[in-house]
Order: sequence, then C-alpha cells, then structure tokens
Amino acid sequence: MLLERIENANDIKKINKRDYDALAQEIRDFLIEKISVTGGHLGSNLGTVELTMALHLALNLPEDKLIWDVGHQSYTHKLLTGRKEGFDSLRQFGGMSGFPKRKESDYDAFDTGHSSTSISAGLGLVKARDIKGEKNTIVSVIGDGSLTGGMAYEAMNNAAKLETNFIIILNDNNMSISENVGGVSKYLNNIRTADSYLDLKEGVYNALRGTKGGDNMVNHIRRAKSSFKQLVIPGMLFEDMGLTYLGPVDGHNIPGLVRVLKEAKRVKGAVLIHVMTQKGKGYAPAERHPARFHGAEPFNIETGIPSHPRTTANYTDIFSTVMCKLGQRDEKIVAITAAMPDGTGLKRFHNMYPDRFFDVGIAEEHAVTFAAGLAAGGLKPVVAVYSSFLQRAYDQIVHDVCIQNLPVVFAIDRAGLVGSDGETHQGIFDFTYLSGIPNMHVCAPKNKWELSDMLKFAVNFGKPIAIRYPRGNAYDGLKEYREPIECGKAEWIYRESEVALFAIGSMVKAAEAVRDKLKEKGYRVSVVNGRFVKPIDEEAVLAACETHKLIVTMEENVACGGYGEKVLKCLNDHEKHIACLNICIPDVYVEHGNVELLKKEIGIDTESIVERICQKLEK
Amino acid sequence: MLLERIENANDIKKINKRDYDALAQEIRDFLIEKISVTGGHLGSNLGTVELTMALHLALNLPEDKLIWDVGHQSYTHKLLTGRKEGFDSLRQFGGMSGFPKRKESDYDAFDTGHSSTSISAGLGLVKARDIKGEKNTIVSVIGDGSLTGGMAYEAMNNAAKLETNFIIILNDNNMSISENVGGVSKYLNNIRTADSYLDLKEGVYNALRGTKGGDNMVNHIRRAKSSFKQLVIPGMLFEDMGLTYLGPVDGHNIPGLVRVLKEAKRVKGAVLIHVMTQKGKGYAPAERHPARFHGAEPFNIETGIPSHPRTTANYTDIFSTVMCKLGQRDEKIVAITAAMPDGTGLKRFHNMYPDRFFDVGIAEEHAVTFAAGLAAGGLKPVVAVYSSFLQRAYDQIVHDVCIQNLPVVFAIDRAGLVGSDGETHQGIFDFTYLSGIPNMHVCAPKNKWELSDMLKFAVNFGKPIAIRYPRGNAYDGLKEYREPIECGKAEWIYRESEVALFAIGSMVKAAEAVRDKLKEKGYRVSVVNGRFVKPIDEEAVLAACETHKLIVTMEENVACGGYGEKVLKCLNDHEKHIACLNICIPDVYVEHGNVELLKKEIGIDTESIVERICQKLEK
Repeated sequence: MLLERIENANDIKKINKRDYDALAQEIRDFLIEKISVTGGHLGSNLGTVELTMALHLALNLPEDKLIWDVGHQSYTHKLLTGRKEGFDSLRQFGGMSGFPKRKESDYDAFDTGHSSTSISAGLGLVKARDIKGEKNTIVSVIGDGSLTGGMAYEAMNNAAKLETNFIIILNDNNMSISENVGGVSKYLNNIRTADSYLDLKEGVYNALRGTKGGDNMVNHIRRAKSSFKQLVIPGMLFEDMGLTYLGPVDGHNIPGLVRVLKEAKRVKGAVLIHVMTQKGKGYAPAERHPARFHGAEPFNIETGIPSHPRTTANYTDIFSTVMCKLGQRDEKIVAITAAMPDGTGLKRFHNMYPDRFFDVGIAEEHAVTFAAGLAAGGLKPVVAVYSSFLQRAYDQIVHDVCIQNLPVVFAIDRAGLVGSDGETHQGIFDFTYLSGIPNMHVCAPKNKWELSDMLKFAVNFGKPIAIRYPRGNAYDGLKEYREPIECGKAEWIYRESEVALFAIGSMVKAAEAVRDKLKEKGYRVSVVNGRFVKPIDEEAVLAACETHKLIVTMEENVACGGYGEKVLKCLNDHEKHIACLNICIPDVYVEHGNVELLKKEIGIDTESIVERICQKLEK
Repeated sequence: MLLERIENANDIKKINKRDYDALAQEIRDFLIEKISVTGGHLGSNLGTVELTMALHLALNLPEDKLIWDVGHQSYTHKLLTGRKEGFDSLRQFGGMSGFPKRKESDYDAFDTGHSSTSISAGLGLVKARDIKGEKNTIVSVIGDGSLTGGMAYEAMNNAAKLETNFIIILNDNNMSISENVGGVSKYLNNIRTADSYLDLKEGVYNALRGTKGGDNMVNHIRRAKSSFKQLVIPGMLFEDMGLTYLGPVDGHNIPGLVRVLKEAKRVKGAVLIHVMTQKGKGYAPAERHPARFHGAEPFNIETGIPSHPRTTANYTDIFSTVMCKLGQRDEKIVAITAAMPDGTGLKRFHNMYPDRFFDVGIAEEHAVTFAAGLAAGGLKPVVAVYSSFLQRAYDQIVHDVCIQNLPVVFAIDRAGLVGSDGETHQGIFDFTYLSGIPNMHVCAPKNKWELSDMLKFAVNFGKPIAIRYPRGNAYDGLKEYREPIECGKAEWIYRESEVALFAIGSMVKAAEAVRDKLKEKGYRVSVVNGRFVKPIDEEAVLAACETHKLIVTMEENVACGGYGEKVLKCLNDHEKHIACLNICIPDVYVEHGNVELLKKEIGIDTESIVERICQKLEK
C-alpha cells in the first residue's frame, strides 16, 4: 500500500514517479470506500486526484498556498496533508469538515464553501506576499462551473494587472453541479474539442518545446504582439483579459501537470492553466451520474445505489411537484435557478416547460435581477435558491426587486440548519437580511401542505415574497390545520393559556414536541404557527398577551432581525410588558454535523427549549 | 430653439437631420444651465447626448425598452420624453429623480442606480417579450466602468445563449467615476487605439459596406467560422463569449449611430455595439475634470467652480486624513476601494502609498474577498465603501471575512440618508445586514474626532469591524467627550434621569437638540452615545433602567435588526419592563431630496422626535 507511506504533507514527494498512477488508484479506492459510508462530495474529488497530487509535487506546502474554489474537491488535499484519519468522521459533528478550514490545518490557506471566491482570495494572498517581500507560490484552483460566477471575472480583471506570479488553475470538467451553461462554457467546449487540444494533449510544455524549443517560450508567447498567436493559441479570451493562458492540459497526467506547473511558476504575472478533468473519474456510477454523485448520501459501492434510499418526500420534492402543477395552470409562471436544477427540484419543471425555465449558471446576482426583468415584463418569476447562496444577491433584492415592488417569488430551500455542509451553508440569516427590506414579504411553512399553499398564494400575490423551508424530510403532521394563507396572518394550532409558543416554519413541529413535554409538567400551552415573519401577525401576538404569562418565539434564524425581535418590537410598541423568551440560533457560526446534534449543541432542541421555558416560568 | 419643439417622446423624429448637431448643442446648453443650479450628474450626461438622440431616433418608445445602467446618464432621455420641466426640481424633494424610475414615466423601462444591472434586467425583458410572443426591441446601455462589475459578465454569459434580438450598448468613455482599472479596460483601450478604430471611425456600417457591400454583412461575419475574423474584427473577447460585436463606433456621430442601431436590430441574438464617447463632452471644465463633474454640486458655468464651496470638513475628509496618518505609522495597513478613490477619500492614501492602495473597479464582491485574502496574508486591510454599495458584498462578508474572523476594517461612508441620489443610495440597512453576522463588530462615531478614534481602534482590533458614518459635514460639537474607544462600550454624554436618549452615530447630534427642547419643557434628559451597535453596551442600557422612566433609541437605520431592536432584546433578556421608544427609518424606501426635509417627512427630525417622546411621556 503506497497510501500507508503518506502520513504527512510532502510525503508524496518520496513516492517513486512510476508509482504515481498506482497511488492515484489507491486514493480513489480510499475516497470511494470512505464516502460510501459517510456520504460527501465524490465526483469532484475523483476528478481532481491527479491534479491534487501534481500540485503537492510541484509546490512546497505550507509556504506555498493552495486555495480551493468551493472547496468540496479538497479531499485528496486533506488526505495528502496528514488528515487520513479524518475521513471516518467526515462532515460529522466534531469531525473533519468537507471543506478547507484554516482552523483545521495549516495546509488550508483559505476557507471556502461558496463558489467563485478563490481568485479574489488568492490575489489577496499574492499582494500580501509581495508587500511583505516574500517569494512563495500561490495557486487558486477554480472549476469551470465557478467561472460562471461574476466575482471570478471581477478577480481575473484585477489579476490582469499583476506583475508578479499568481497561478490560476481552471479545473474544467464541463460541469458545475449540473450541466454548465452560457457563452463561456461554450467557448471552453470549443477549445476542448478543437484539434489544438489533441495536439497539445501531452501537456503544453512538450508542445511548446516542440515548436520553438526553449523554456522562454511561455514568456515569448506572452510578449508576442502579432495577431498570429490568436490563430495558434487557444484561450484568447483569457489572453484578451490580460492573463497568460497555458493549455489545455490533460488533468489526469501527473508528469504533464507537474511540468506545466513548474513552467507557470516562472511567469511574471497571472497565468491561467486550463486543465481538463473528468468528474467522477474512475468510478463508473459517478461517471454516469455526475449530478447524483456531486453530494452523495452513503451508497453501495458495487451498485452506486444509496444505502438508505429516501422513503419520505422532502420539501424540495413538494416544491418540485407544486411548481409543475402551477406551471400548467398559468403560463406566466417562469422558474429560475442558479446552477441547481436538481438541488432545487426544478428539473421536472424544466422538462415540462423548457421555454419557461432558466438555469443561469452559478450567478445569483444575475438570477435575481433577471427575475426582476421578467417580472417587469409581465411574467411571474419564481427564483428557487438555497438560503445561504441567496446572500449573494442581497443587493439585487433590495435594489432591483423591492424598490420597484416587482412580483418575484423567492423559494428558499436549505433554510435553517443544513447539517453536514456546515458553517458556509447554514441558512440562518435569511429572515434578517430579507425582512429588513421594504416591500418584501417573508413566510415559512409548518409542513408540506403549507408549502404547497404558500407557493400557490405567492405566485398570485403580486409583490415580492419569500418562502423559506428547510433541507430534509417535509413534516407531514398537522395535516388538519390548513387555514387559507393570508398575508401577515398566523394560525392558531392549540389555543390554551399560560405559555404561548409562537413558532415559525420548521419550529412548529418542534413546538408540538415542546408542548407535549410542558403538558406533562402540567402547563397549559398554546401553539401559534407564525407563518409570516414579515409582516408578523401583531393581532395574534397581542391576543396572546391577554391570556398567557409567557410568550416563546421559536425560529431557525439568528436573533438579530429575526422573528423573535419582531415580536419584541410589537410587544414594546403596544406597551405589553409580558415575559418573552426568544429561541433562535445563537450569534455564532454553526459548524457541520447532524442537525439534531447541532440543535442540542446550540440549545434549540426540544429538551433545551423545555428547560429554558421552565426556568423562565419558575422565576 | 429646436428644443422648444421637443415636448413629448418621439418629437425628435420630426427634427430635420441637418439640425441634429444644433439640437445636441441646445441639449448640452440646457443640461449645463440646469445642473449648474440644481447640481447633478453632468459629465456622464454630456457624454451621451448624441447616443441618446440616436436611440430615440432608431427606437420606437415606449414599445421598445431602454435600460440605462446606473441611470445617472439618463438626463437627455428624460428631456426627450416630456420631462423638460422636471429639471428645475431635479433630485429635489418631491421633484424629478436623477435616475430612471418606472413610477415617474412609462418611458423608463427599469429602475437603476447601482452599477452593472442593465444586461440582466434587459435579458429578463427580452425573455418576457419572447414568451409573450411580442416583437419589440430591448436595449441596455452599459458603461465600460459598469463592465468591471461581475454581474454584467454573468449576464453576458447568459445573453450568449439568446436566439432572439437583444442590443447591448457599451458606452465606452474610458472612465468609471474615476479612471478605469483592470484587464478588460486595457483590452478596450487596445481596441480604441488600434488602427482599426481609425478606419471604422465613420461607423461600422460604412466600413462593412466598404469591405463586402451588403446588409447581410453583419450576419455573415457572425456566422463566419474562419479564424480570419480574429485578425480583422476587434472585439473578439465579446465574440468569444458568444455575443455579436459591432464597433467601435463614434458615439458623437448621430447618423452613424442610427445606422448601426438599425443593423443591430436585425441580428438574431445578443449584439454588443461598442460606442466611444467622451465624458463631459462639450463643456471644457467637465472634460478636464471628469471625476469632479461626475456628481456635481451647483457651479458657476463660466469657471466650473462650485457656487458654494465647502468650508467645513466632511467625514470623508476626516477618514482621508486619518488613513494617511495611519498608513505612515503602520506599513501593514492597506486600503481598498471599488472604483471610488475620490468619493471615499482614499486618493491621498493612494498618492502617498501607491503599493498599498487597490482600486479594484466596480467590484464590491471581489473587493471584500480580496481584502479577506490580504488579511489572511497578515496585512490590515481597510475597505472604504458606501453603505448601499456594500450590500453587493454581503455574502462575502458572511462567508469570506467573518467565518475566518479576519481583521478586515470596513469604513462605510454615505451611511444613513444620503439625500439627492434617493432610494437606491440611502444607506439605511447596514446595521441590519452587518450586525446579524457572527464575529462582526459595528460602530458609528458621534463626531469627527470619534471617527478618527474609531479608525485607529479598528485597524488594531484584530477582528472584523465596521465603522459607518454619514454623507456631508462632520459634526464638530461635543469635542470634549472623547473617552477611549472600547469594544461594546457606550459613552454617557449627559447623565440625568427621566428620559434616556440612546443615540448612535449621526443621531447623537440630533439627541443633543432633542434634549435641549425637552429641557425647555422641563424634562430631565440623559444622552448616551451608543458607539457600538454590535455588541451593544448592555450595562449602559441596564443602568439607564434604574434611573429613567423612558428609553429612546435613535438611529438612521431601519427598525429590523437595528440598534433599537437590540436594546429591546437586551431589556427583554434582563426582564426590564421599561417604556422604550424606537426612532428609526420606517419600513419604506426613502426617496431623494434634502436630508433635513426627508427626516421631517419620515418623522425623525428634532421636532417630530420631541413630539413623539412627549406623547409617550404623557401616556
């Protein structure tokens, strides 16, 4: 076993060259075995085994810095930097993160999680290096999917000014999570399929040596002013932007990659190496179904089939189904996703109404303003997006949707705690950033039927509105509570006295459990399904004051600007001096792990809530 | 006077061709005269007189749709669409907006204000048109400065897929507000200065006719697959991205512009017309000082000198001076701006420490993650930015700065009401979106000395921190109150009893005035300078409860997630049932106008606050 000899960073440099392919195979086997048990990002990691090995061979870590865009492809990097043991606890509470984390390892130069940040961060490290007079190499590895995000372009535009070395690796697998979209993707595809690629397949270094012979070739080409280079060198798009382009290079040929990396280190300026990789490489099920093996649940290695197939519908499924129905009834309904047709459940809508479906790439900013344009044009756009990714489009919601009061519906998935993806993906700020915006409306369903009802309500609401719902199984309790949705109206589930639980979204289910426990202790407990965070149902809050001695607000959002503070504001404005307890996400980043464990950790599980309520009541 | 004949939209079509230049001159004279009185955006409007005229000649408004990126260059458009009278009240309370507004005119197709949104919005209108089976023409006009913003690129990447017509006009004046930066800017400059531009100066149409003769040339070139086109046609960057490129075209030649627009309308797909304009064209002072005449105060037409020269320092000046001092003391301090070296006051820092200053273009997302990279590299970055523009980088603050707890200082200018720029530019959400983020710290100075003290505190704080301060004159009262800045500590200015005014930032000055009025009425009034919105000084709040019967919070931010709600939360958490009144921006977009008038309108001027406090006390 070669892998046994990889205990620490740079151990790979002791491996004999002829064993590289064997080591790559062992790494693949290791990753497949581990991820089949823990779940995790498989396809992107199988695609970058050789690239990562080459980087570790060509660089001198940790002096040199390696930044992984998105970061879910950093598993081989973790494996090669002394974290082999971590894979048994991958993405589990207290265990190893699925993303690079500076606090986890000195070999992780910059935390990532969201897309398209790596060139900006790398450029910052480059400038810090230059100002401090240091000499290390900085490399950002970015996928072609991440290249559809605007900030990658902003960063390239700035990298063009550099006069010192900075290496950008374009890891081109012709995919984001789903298929890639747009003009640049098509452009890359043209390079990929051009004859020039076949000629250069063995690595740009050899090709260059072949044509002119000499190490200066790279700089020579860069300096060449004649338009001739446009004919012979692919990648003019990048050259035109001011980057030196090298490639395309076979991303599974380690010696070729090492050679081109060494070449790239000599360039005085920003250099982009275009590396061709195959997502899921070496594992047939992942090669065949790249989207399914992007973020995989535990699976059977033989068949690739999930070990614990889902039996219950999740909120995404409900959204998916209702959107298809609504699309049939109303031809004005259009749907937008930012590179997440599978994740958001819009794939079926796409299949049924291809002309009314838009996958804009990893481009949340554009997605939202594009939706505003569609709405200004008289349509009814629904933007389906994860809570933490919508953060990217905050200004567009403020500036393009809400000032003009345009009827855009935001279907916000993965709101609240998401679990194993951790800090970067927790959807715990959306109540805050959305409900501070004038003209915006924000609601959250208690169960699967209410998501359906809210969505139907929203598409005909005629003003900006967001519906947020969590990852995972859709709650199917409380089926009999289905009062028509009305803007700003809460729903009374249990109407008793003493303690009033005002819960929103996923916390209504929790409120039921809390109520049961409190009942056991002899308390009388009301439960109100808040439904709307903006505007909140002031009438329900004020009514509760009359007959209760404690109001408890429950939400999966931070306190600041959340449901609880809105209830407090209502109480204060109406001079109601009643005791109020706010259950919410504390003011910390919540790490990765099983959602139930996380809730316990931060004190918002049933037991903790009951305890806190009892403490409050006993005072 | 030709301008007298322009009463309504499309009146320009009745003007004789030979009078176009004379009309352009009249429009320039009109704009200079009006803006010299009201103030407003001059340079960008003088640069687009002929372009706007050509658009109105070639299009059929309002069926065709015209979207102005940023929108400050839409004055000629307003003039040509029946809004001549509006210029006397330009940007004044109740008067005409300085930006396109759908609620102001049917000829304004989409509201703008921030940069780089027009292609996304235009694409939305295009898709809505196609889905509805309509046939109108949609044109987005975007400056080369706005092209440095990532969402413009996201949108172009999507426009490349279009199979129906969409016209993007690149209004290239080689400037954003200040000089342009980056690789793409350099690329455009190469086109501008190439011989090909000189050849094509008379308009691309003639040039095309010359070479092949025939209207099909545009489509022919577009279809041409041979690499030959790379040699003869500039703009391959855009062609590579999948857009049809036409240009460069002289932006001050009306017949040439009209011809190329008519050509462009025939293209089946997205077409980019590269138009060369001169900012400030036709008014010598504006040609010489484009940055100064970007957003001009009232000025003397003869000399170009401001009619009412500033005599008092504003907060930007203070920031500018202190940054220079700090930069001298500590070589780790670096400064970042997104295309606002003048507006943010960083120009002097740039002059003194060019290697530690970074203008990244209109690219707030990149600016923030780049700063995070600089901080991860061991430097002390200060990002100077306007409050409403920082909204663009919300996710980057959450994801790249605060998760890693990196010591980035945000110097947030134009926070609170900004006045004449109106809805899109009011900085009234930053307390909300920033203070919901774990690890972030947020403060605001009461006067100019405190801004200096806070900045000195912040650069050595070692964690993410934001200082927000308003547009306009720096308050120079309360000089004697200068307790050392301490994280989360408020400052007692007057310590009495009965009413405690907890004011933050600009509202401390207001609190003084409110206190004077209340004293006249016989009340005893304390004033606390809150200093920190996150974390708030709970001790000060709780102390106030002991000796006061009313707490009043005062802030220039919306209620949601603001200072007031934090005080309420503190009171509630500590079970203090004291009356509390929250003075803040109401939940509406605040339009343009004089800040004092706006405050009156929304009830946060001295009189209104005093009245509300008295009402509360009398209850």
